[in-house]
Amino acid sequence: MMYVPEIIRKKRESHALDYEEIHAVIDGYTKGLVPDYQISALLMAIYFNGMDTQETANLLDAMLNSGVVCDFSSIKAPKVDKHSTGGVGDKVSICLAPLAASAGVSVPMISGRGLGHTGGTLDKLESIPGFNVRLDLKRFEQIVHKYGFCLIGQTDEIAPADRKLYALRDVTATVESIPLITASILSKKLAEGIDALVLDVKAGTGAFMKDIQSARKLARSLCSTARRAGCRTRALITDMNQPLGHAVGNALEVAEAVDFLKGGGPADLREITLVLGSHMLVLGKISSSLEDARTELEKRLVSGEALERFLDVVEAQGGDPEAVMDTRLLPSAPHIEEVSASLSGWVQQTDARTIAMAALELGAGRSKMEDKINPSVGIVLLKKPGEKITAGEALAQIHAADISTARRAASQVFNACLIGDKKSDVSGPVLEEIIQD
Amino acid sequence: MMYVPEIIRKKRESHALDYEEIHAVIDGYTKGLVPDYQISALLMAIYFNGMDTQETANLLDAMLNSGVVCDFSSIKAPKVDKHSTGGVGDKVSICLAPLAASAGVSVPMISGRGLGHTGGTLDKLESIPGFNVRLDLKRFEQIVHKYGFCLIGQTDEIAPADRKLYALRDVTATVESIPLITASILSKKLAEGIDALVLDVKAGTGAFMKDIQSARKLARSLCSTARRAGCRTRALITDMNQPLGHAVGNALEVAEAVDFLKGGGPADLREITLVLGSHMLVLGKISSSLEDARTELEKRLVSGEALERFLDVVEAQGGDPEAVMDTRLLPSAPHIEEVSASLSGWVQQTDARTIAMAALELGAGRSKMEDKINPSVGIVLLKKPGEKITAGEALAQIHAADISTARRAASQVFNACLIGDKKSDVSGPVLEEIIQD
Repeated sequence: MMYVPEIIRKKRESHALDYEEIHAVIDGYTKGLVPDYQISALLMAIYFNGMDTQETANLLDAMLNSGVVCDFSSIKAPKVDKHSTGGVGDKVSICLAPLAASAGVSVPMISGRGLGHTGGTLDKLESIPGFNVRLDLKRFEQIVHKYGFCLIGQTDEIAPADRKLYALRDVTATVESIPLITASILSKKLAEGIDALVLDVKAGTGAFMKDIQSARKLARSLCSTARRAGCRTRALITDMNQPLGHAVGNALEVAEAVDFLKGGGPADLREITLVLGSHMLVLGKISSSLEDARTELEKRLVSGEALERFLDVVEAQGGDPEAVMDTRLLPSAPHIEEVSASLSGWVQQTDARTIAMAALELGAGRSKMEDKINPSVGIVLLKKPGEKITAGEALAQIHAADISTARRAASQVFNACLIGDKKSDVSGPVLEEIIQD
Repeated sequence: MMYVPEIIRKKRESHALDYEEIHAVIDGYTKGLVPDYQISALLMAIYFNGMDTQETANLLDAMLNSGVVCDFSSIKAPKVDKHSTGGVGDKVSICLAPLAASAGVSVPMISGRGLGHTGGTLDKLESIPGFNVRLDLKRFEQIVHKYGFCLIGQTDEIAPADRKLYALRDVTATVESIPLITASILSKKLAEGIDALVLDVKAGTGAFMKDIQSARKLARSLCSTARRAGCRTRALITDMNQPLGHAVGNALEVAEAVDFLKGGGPADLREITLVLGSHMLVLGKISSSLEDARTELEKRLVSGEALERFLDVVEAQGGDPEAVMDTRLLPSAPHIEEVSASLSGWVQQTDARTIAMAALELGAGRSKMEDKINPSVGIVLLKKPGEKITAGEALAQIHAADISTARRAASQVFNACLIGDKKSDVSGPVLEEIIQD
C-alpha cells in the first residue's frame, strides 16, 4: 500500500503523479480504504497544480476501470457517442441519437440528470409517459444491438469512482478543475465501449464555462485525454449565451425534439444537431466528408427514418409512441401566461442563465439532487435574438403549475430579453470546431 | 449555519476569510458538524493561498476558544512562557522554567511529546522516576501558584480543535503552512493564560525550518499573530544544524539540564537559556534591560535557587528529587560504546538530523505516536564543532540497549561528524532576535 500523504505532497509540490500512484489512490478510494479527507486534500492540490495529459489519462483509466466497461465488440457498426457539457434548452441528444443511428452509427448513450440551471436528458425523456431510463446494462446492450441506440442513466456499475469523487468535489469546492472535469466526463463516456466521441462544449452565461477561452481549454483537454485513451474524439464549441431552440422545460423540449425529427424544429437546434451528427458519421467512417455526412443525415430526416428509429426505441424503453406522434399527449401545464414586449425593435439578447433560473423556479429543474421535477412546466421563447418584434407582441410563453409562479417567471423572462432598435448580428450556434486528428 | 463549500471556495480564490467564517468552520469541526473532508480541502487551500495576520489571529482565536483557557489572574507575578519549535538535544524548558520562576516569573508550561527526529520535554521529564506530566488543570494551577512553574502535557480540555486539526494535517500533507503552524502553536500556548511569550524558532537540519529565511517567516508570523491576540511576544532564531548541548536522549538530557541548574552545563545550552530567560524577565517587566535580567538569572544559578525550585516541582509532580541530585539514579543503558575519530583535526560539523535519526533508532524517540520510548538510551557528543580532536580520541558515547543497536548508531554518529584540518568558525546558538515591541 502506497503512503497516501506522500502522494498528496507530491501533487502539492506540483510533480506529476505516475500510473501506480494514481491507481493506488483511486482504487483505494473506490474500495473504501483511502478516506474522503485524504482525497479532498488531493483534489484541492490538483485544483491548484493541475495535471498533465498523461496524468489525466491515468486518472481517467483508474476511474473508468473502477467499474464495468460495456463490450459492444459484436456490433459491426461504429460505436460513436456525443457528450454535451450542459446547457439550457439542450435537447440535442434526443434529436441526435436516433438520427445518427438511422444513418448507421451505433449510439450507446448513458446520460445524466439535470442539476442547478442545466437540464438533463434523462429528465426530459421521462416526460414521455412510461419511458424508462433505468435499464440494466444487459437490456441497454440488447436495445443498442437491435435499434442502434438507447438512452439510459448511469448505473451503479459504471465508474463508481467517479460517482464518489463527484459527490466529494461538490461539497469541497473542487469542481472547477479541467483535469478533474475531463476524467469525470470521459470515465462515464468511455464506459460505453465506444470507438469515437463528439463533444459539444458550451460557452456562455448558461454554460459551465462562461467564456470561449475556458471552453477551448476544456475541449482540448477532453480531446487529448480521450485520444490518449484510444478514443477518436473531436469537439465543437457552441454558444450558450441564449437557450438552444425555443423550448426550455422537459415535455416542451421533447415536443421540440420531435418537431426536429419530423423535419422541422428551430434553426439553431437543427444546425447544431446536423453538425454534431456529421462529425459522428465521419469519426465513425460512415462518411468520408462532413458534407457527405450532412446530406446523409438530411435524407434520414426527410425519409422519416430518424423519427421511426426514435419511435422504436421509445417503445423498447417502455414509453408511449402515441405521445411522440401527438405531443399534445405529453404532460401539459394547467396555466399558460404570455410575456409581451414593451417596445418595438429587434431582440438583442435572451440571457440563457436568467431563463434557466426562471425555468428552475417553475419546477422544471432541481436545486438539490432530491428535488422532484415537474415535467410539464417551462418556457417557450417565441422570439429569439435577431428577430423583429412589435410592442405588445408575445415574446414568450410561460407554462406553469399556478398563476403566482407563472407571474414570477414572466417577470424574470421579461428581464432576460433585451430589445434594441437595430437588428442585431446573430452568429450560428457552432463557434469553433476542434479537430486535431 | 454557513455553507462550508462557499467558505472553502473563498479561500481557494485567495480571499481573506472573516471572523464569522473562520469561527463557523472551526466551531463546527470541533463539534463534529463539519466533516474532515471539507476541512482537509480548506487546509490545502490555506496551504496554497496563505492567511493574513488578521485571519491567522481569528483562526487562533477560534482554536483557542474551542477549549479551556487557564485563569491565573489571582497570581500577581507576570505569567510568561517559552515555546520552542523543536530541535535535537533541546532540554531548554527543563533548565529555563525553574530558572525564570526563581527570578519571579510564573511559568505555566504545557509541553508536547517527541515525534520523529525531535524530542519532547514530557518524554525527558518522565525519565525522572515517578515524575507525572498528566496532571489535571486544577493541580497544574495549584503548583504554578505555589512554586512559580509546572510542566505538564496537553490535556483534553486544551484547544481540542488543534488536536483534531493537527491529526488531520498530518495525514493530508498540510502540515507545512505558516498560518496553520502559527495558530496551532499559539492556541496551545495562549490557553495557558499567559501575559507574554518568548519563542525559540530553530533553523537547521535538525529543525522543522531548514533555513533561516523560513524560520524568520514563521517567527514573524508567530510574533504578529500573538500580539494581535494581546500577548506580548518576542522570538529568537537559534541554530539547529548541530544538537544543543552534548546529550541527546531522555535521561541523558535531564542529567545535562541538572548540570546546568547546578551552575555548569555546556556553553551553548547555557547561552541560549540565559538569553531566552532574559527576554522572559524583560517581557514580564521583572527587569528593565536584558543585561539586568541576565545578571539576575546568573545570580539564581549561583545561589542554587533555580535548582531548589526544580527539586520542589519534581517532588510536587511525584518525581524523585534524589534522582535529580544524583543523576546516576536516572535510568541508564546497559551498553555504552565509544565512537573514535579516525583522523586528527578540528570538528567542523555534527549534523543534527543524522544524530537525531541515530538516537531515534536507539529507541530514544518515536516514529509513530504509539511507539514506546526507552528513557535510558541516547548519544553524548564529547567533541562539538570548533573543538580539537586527535585520531583515536573519543568523539561520542553511544548509550544503547544492546550491542547491535549500539554499533549501528556508532556508525551513524561517526558519519554525522566531519573533521577538517582547520579550526572552524563557530557562531553562538542565537542567530537573530526578533523584537518588534
